[in-house]
Amino acid sequence: MSATLGKLIGLGTGPGNPELLTLKAARYLAEADVVAYFAKRGAKGNARTIVDTHIRPGVIELPMIYPVTTEIHKDHTDYINPINNFYEDIARQVEDHLRAGHTVVVLSEGDPLFYGSYMHLHVRLAHRFPTEVVPGVTAMSGCWSATGVPIVQGDDILSILPGTLSEDVLARRLMDTDAAVIMKVGRNLPKIRRALAAAGKLERAIYVERGTMANMAITPLADKADDVAPYFSIVLVPGWAAKPGENLAAALQMAEGLA
Amino acid sequence: MSATLGKLIGLGTGPGNPELLTLKAARYLAEADVVAYFAKRGAKGNARTIVDTHIRPGVIELPMIYPVTTEIHKDHTDYINPINNFYEDIARQVEDHLRAGHTVVVLSEGDPLFYGSYMHLHVRLAHRFPTEVVPGVTAMSGCWSATGVPIVQGDDILSILPGTLSEDVLARRLMDTDAAVIMKVGRNLPKIRRALAAAGKLERAIYVERGTMANMAITPLADKADDVAPYFSIVLVPGWAAKPGENLAAALQMAEGLA
Ligand SMILES: C[S@@+](CC[C@H](N)C(=O)[O-])C[C@H]1O[C@@H](n2cnc3c(N)ncnc32)[C@H](O)[C@@H]1O
Ligand SMILES: C[S@@+](CC[C@H](N)C(=O)[O-])C[C@H]1O[C@@H](n2cnc3c(N)ncnc32)[C@H](O)[C@@H]1O
Repeated sequence: MSATLGKLIGLGTGPGNPELLTLKAARYLAEADVVAYFAKRGAKGNARTIVDTHIRPGVIELPMIYPVTTEIHKDHTDYINPINNFYEDIARQVEDHLRAGHTVVVLSEGDPLFYGSYMHLHVRLAHRFPTEVVPGVTAMSGCWSATGVPIVQGDDILSILPGTLSEDVLARRLMDTDAAVIMKVGRNLPKIRRALAAAGKLERAIYVERGTMANMAITPLADKADDVAPYFSIVLVPGWAAKPGENLAAALQMAEGLA
Repeated sequence: MSATLGKLIGLGTGPGNPELLTLKAARYLAEADVVAYFAKRGAKGNARTIVDTHIRPGVIELPMIYPVTTEIHKDHTDYINPINNFYEDIARQVEDHLRAGHTVVVLSEGDPLFYGSYMHLHVRLAHRFPTEVVPGVTAMSGCWSATGVPIVQGDDILSILPGTLSEDVLARRLMDTDAAVIMKVGRNLPKIRRALAAAGKLERAIYVERGTMANMAITPLADKADDVAPYFSIVLVPGWAAKPGENLAAALQMAEGLA
């Protein structure tokens, strides 16, 4: 036990390319006592991989292994109870380190408070320990920058929609917005495709998989032949209606050069 | 004239704190031949200020001075003609550098393709020159990280609304979303306040001015006594309804410690 409490740091790692880490994130990693990260059993975890070259020798690593996969529906009690126990359990582990005076960095893909698991630790600990959240480049910024398509401009409204929403809700939301980003694509892709078609926006949609990573792929969604999408995939519907065709053509030409 | 064309780089500087620059942005600044940036007449420009310590001695600086202020309404022809001529003119200047084989970095606050002026150069040049967009931490990520409020989680829908929209549109959009970010606040604040009240969400709204900068200020909007807001201000309406009161209280306590 130390007289001084340690500091909790929720740290955004950016969308995948290790160079999209911020200078502040790199400094905090160099100074951390403990680096905690979420991962599936048997995997290293994407966030941990992104910061590989910034892990200080001798730092304490704290992998936080999800007890369940996404195969069980999240409203089912078989999912809710283990996941709640899991968050309680890891919060206690992080708390022990903070009480011992350790600085604990919790890695978070993209930006920590934007659909990130870090917030489950944050709401349990931030009011009791010195805490700082280091923002990161979001997956969507990484993806639209890679495509080179201006996503919004001027008075454009941007709707950010989880692909887990129902087809009806997705279609209604897509109809009633200038631009959209659909997160959590994965196995929701067939449903997302139907909702985009119903909203008359399938032709404008761009599919990005593993944005900014080494094996990134970009394609107009209408041209994607299959409905296979990894966890790290997103759909962009650019606003900025000025010259949509031209923009899309120019952008995809540019993306080809990059990919 | 050089045989090899130079490269155009749209470079996100992040929301204001210089440490929120990415490693890639820092590297590209160190390698640039020309650093171009938007500014008002007589001012240095916020993006240029953010990267101050990364400007290589001997680099060519290309300030791009806006011909008009925001005082003229943007649909008025007194605004549209000069602003179009301005974009054409600076695109030609950047093009000359690219033809001379220079690498041109165009600074953009936050993330370049997210409501950024950089896109006016991008659509004029990206299809004709090697181009890369380096994503940045957005102003909204910087702001919600500073408040410590989880903005969205799970199935939450996030609506990003320019404060330049009409009161009616703002109110309708605010009513029909889980979470919202209102950009371009400034002198639109009285209207934004009325729209939030009409949507029943004024109590949940958080006002952030100069997020992540040295003189940042954070306050529940309902507690802000005046309607004076600088250009660099934003309003956040967090989703994640689980324990909104607790979250807000804890977050504002945390923000106090930071500010
Ligand atoms: C739980 S959310 C986390 C979002 C993250 N906190 C952020 O700021 O972007 C995970 C979803 O983000 C998207 N995502 C994350 N990284 C991505 C990448 N490199 N390319 C495409 N999509 C990505 C996918 O839609 C994925 O299902
Ligand atoms: C033209 S938009 C540019 C947005 C930028 N490209 C981004 O990625 O966030 C300018 C608006 O961003 C918001 N903004 C930019 N920096 C900010 C900051 N540090 N704090 C609060 N709001 C900011 C304000 O609402 C401002 O009116």
